[in-house]
Amino acid sequence: MATTDDRRPKYQRIADSLREAIRSGEYGPGDRLPGENDLMAEYGVARMTARQAIGVLRDEGIAEARKGAGVFVRSFRPIRRRGIQRLAREQWGNGRSIWSADIESRALEVDQVSVSEETAPAYVSAALDLAAGDLVCVRRRRFVLDDKPVQVATSYLPLSLVAGSAITQEDTGPGGTYARLAELGHEPVHFREEIRSRMPSPDEVTQLGISPGTPVILICRTAFTAQGHPVEFNEMTLDAGSYVLEYDFGAS
Amino acid sequence: MATTDDRRPKYQRIADSLREAIRSGEYGPGDRLPGENDLMAEYGVARMTARQAIGVLRDEGIAEARKGAGVFVRSFRPIRRRGIQRLAREQWGNGRSIWSADIESRALEVDQVSVSEETAPAYVSAALDLAAGDLVCVRRRRFVLDDKPVQVATSYLPLSLVAGSAITQEDTGPGGTYARLAELGHEPVHFREEIRSRMPSPDEVTQLGISPGTPVILICRTAFTAQGHPVEFNEMTLDAGSYVLEYDFGAS
Repeated sequence: MATTDDRRPKYQRIADSLREAIRSGEYGPGDRLPGENDLMAEYGVARMTARQAIGVLRDEGIAEARKGAGVFVRSFRPIRRRGIQRLAREQWGNGRSIWSADIESRALEVDQVSVSEETAPAYVSAALDLAAGDLVCVRRRRFVLDDKPVQVATSYLPLSLVAGSAITQEDTGPGGTYARLAELGHEPVHFREEIRSRMPSPDEVTQLGISPGTPVILICRTAFTAQGHPVEFNEMTLDAGSYVLEYDFGAS
Repeated sequence: MATTDDRRPKYQRIADSLREAIRSGEYGPGDRLPGENDLMAEYGVARMTARQAIGVLRDEGIAEARKGAGVFVRSFRPIRRRGIQRLAREQWGNGRSIWSADIESRALEVDQVSVSEETAPAYVSAALDLAAGDLVCVRRRRFVLDDKPVQVATSYLPLSLVAGSAITQEDTGPGGTYARLAELGHEPVHFREEIRSRMPSPDEVTQLGISPGTPVILICRTAFTAQGHPVEFNEMTLDAGSYVLEYDFGAS
């Protein structure tokens, strides 16, 4: 279905044609798109118009410029993040997944780990059922895939629960934070994940090396003990161009 | 923390100051921001520079212009969509949620329902374990909150399973599609939801009335029977400015 509204600016109409060609599969993920010179020749337009048309697709996150090489259809080869792994998916996973996840098996590197003691910000106090001014152990880290940062995460744990444990060290030991919480008598057994998406702040663009036209996904996970006490609040910021989230669950 | 990199263009630095003022709470959700005239006077800049600064915040989705009234800090008062409702949250939900959800109780209206029989697109065939060319029952609808469309959804069901049932009618009857599937011996008991986020296409901007600087959230849900057969594939497109998704689940 071609867009034939001729009152739209010319660069918009060129962008429409290119978008349609990508949608139809004429240009696949990773394919090189016509450059400014190609568009100038094909549509008889000025360089600025051709540039604007390409800019529209870049701002929509469906094309990306590679320095000196041209403009390409962006691929979406996401990391698959499973929110719930406890179900035996093999038993009922016949239907194939919609977004291929060939990165799934590649390991994410964790770097820039830092641990500190801080006064909990108000929204963290609320999430962790703390009083104003209560201290939290704050664990920050970054996840990197093939030298590209894809996620930053900050965990907050009530200092009253974890002071003196390995959770306050950079290396939390085998099994990580949750194993240590269990040893302390605060095993997390229920989780709540809240997800939203928005455009990144300039800081987030820098931190995650986010491409133009790409949102971030925010995940706030709260971990609860069997008694219903929140013991960890984890705030994750994901480059939406790098992730697909998956939740598998049973009927109510 | 003020950004003091003086090599950045002036409109960027003005945008930084406004963003910081919003982040610090000086301007709260729904508050009116300084207009072009205010910024011109305060920073001694030309109208175009003031306009560009406001444009930066609008493109980031943190400010919105209201016709004739000025520019305002955008509020995020999301609809809360619960992916998993089966756990008794009361028992362990002491920690307060991070994003307030005062819209939760308001009812979403469903409109523009349409039902048709179509050949399944390739990705739907793959999700539903169908052969190329197999027919599906396609149910399209839109969800509207306070006259604002917030979600469009398209369900696909194998026609071989649902032909002749109320699922092929506009009104599927009490309990809806899942109740009818159960009666047909295909009760969905497992679900997989896959989530990603990207910038909207121009069609989606129009369909959902999406504000500038706002992504869409895509949810693909597949419903499986106890035998592991996929019986429904539901593709949802959400205005990310209107939603927070929530998943509650137990440990593995």
